[in-house]
Amino acid sequence: MYRLYGMSGSGNCYKPKLLLTQMGVPFAWIEKDTRKAETRTPEYLAMNANGKVPLLEITPGQYLAESNAILCYLAEGTPYLPQDRWQRAHVMQWLFFEQYSHEPYLAVARFIMKFLPPDDARRADLPRLHARGHQALAVMERQLTEHAFFAGGQYSIADIALYAYTHVADEGGFDLSRYSKVRGWLERVHAQSGHVGMA
Amino acid sequence: MYRLYGMSGSGNCYKPKLLLTQMGVPFAWIEKDTRKAETRTPEYLAMNANGKVPLLEITPGQYLAESNAILCYLAEGTPYLPQDRWQRAHVMQWLFFEQYSHEPYLAVARFIMKFLPPDDARRADLPRLHARGHQALAVMERQLTEHAFFAGGQYSIADIALYAYTHVADEGGFDLSRYSKVRGWLERVHAQSGHVGMA
Repeated sequence: MYRLYGMSGSGNCYKPKLLLTQMGVPFAWIEKDTRKAETRTPEYLAMNANGKVPLLEITPGQYLAESNAILCYLAEGTPYLPQDRWQRAHVMQWLFFEQYSHEPYLAVARFIMKFLPPDDARRADLPRLHARGHQALAVMERQLTEHAFFAGGQYSIADIALYAYTHVADEGGFDLSRYSKVRGWLERVHAQSGHVGMA
Repeated sequence: MYRLYGMSGSGNCYKPKLLLTQMGVPFAWIEKDTRKAETRTPEYLAMNANGKVPLLEITPGQYLAESNAILCYLAEGTPYLPQDRWQRAHVMQWLFFEQYSHEPYLAVARFIMKFLPPDDARRADLPRLHARGHQALAVMERQLTEHAFFAGGQYSIADIALYAYTHVADEGGFDLSRYSKVRGWLERVHAQSGHVGMA
């Protein structure tokens, strides 16, 4: 059985949890709290030198890091990752968009507002994070104006990756009221068979 | 023929240029200077709503963004992207590592030091960028202690992606003298058949 090392409340860790649940694949969840440095122990660093969650144990001693790489691995050969070369490329485009242009703003703003004390110095980063996060949301809104899902004309791991932090964007101070297409897409993702919440 | 929109001197744009050259696939390079906002025009945003380079035109009207998604698309079916499921997953892991834990520090530090005026306020970011960048380099050093290349036991797009900004890390103020395995790997990548420089 897969073992998934993750932190509850982390959108990145929620991604493989959601996919595995929707695929009906059993897995064991092993809680690791990054705020208690549980991913910086020698034992954990031997499994993932980058010291992050999520981490998928495929077999004992065989570990895969990076949330979106885990999604690709698990979805291979399923409808969650299309076989068609162009559709597949499009899924990949949105997965990299998520990690480079979306998560560093939406997830980090949420982390600061939800998990750090109100007087933490990092709150000074929020205006920049909000500006860049809204740029990402505007790109999503534009894509969803013409498409029901991000890639391949159907629900895929691109949607799972982008849903993870978009559906809790309000916790990072993002008001989604101006993004009607994004809100409609959030509802469509939530309505997918086998959907499970983050907490 | 592929058309590749890119900015000379950008590591992200260098990645597909290097792969296409090594594959012997002809392409046209269309220069776009992001510092002159040439990727923020209505015409460009119609091709890539995220307003970034590189961008690959596969056929007129069919565009693929995100440097590492372009690498995956082009390398499909070639030795640069293994077919084996586990090796392939490992390639993906390093591609996402590069965009999330490496490029935002090495590339941004280089941008600040190479392209911004010496008195630019963003130089205040350099200590944080250097600290995080050295964390990424240490993770690479550890992987290369046991492996000649990053994934699959051979040169792949994971190496191309990580080479792009590592081989010019000095321009961002990173001293690689303490990373002997990384330096050896840079030499191995440079020695690959069909290698071409960035400039």
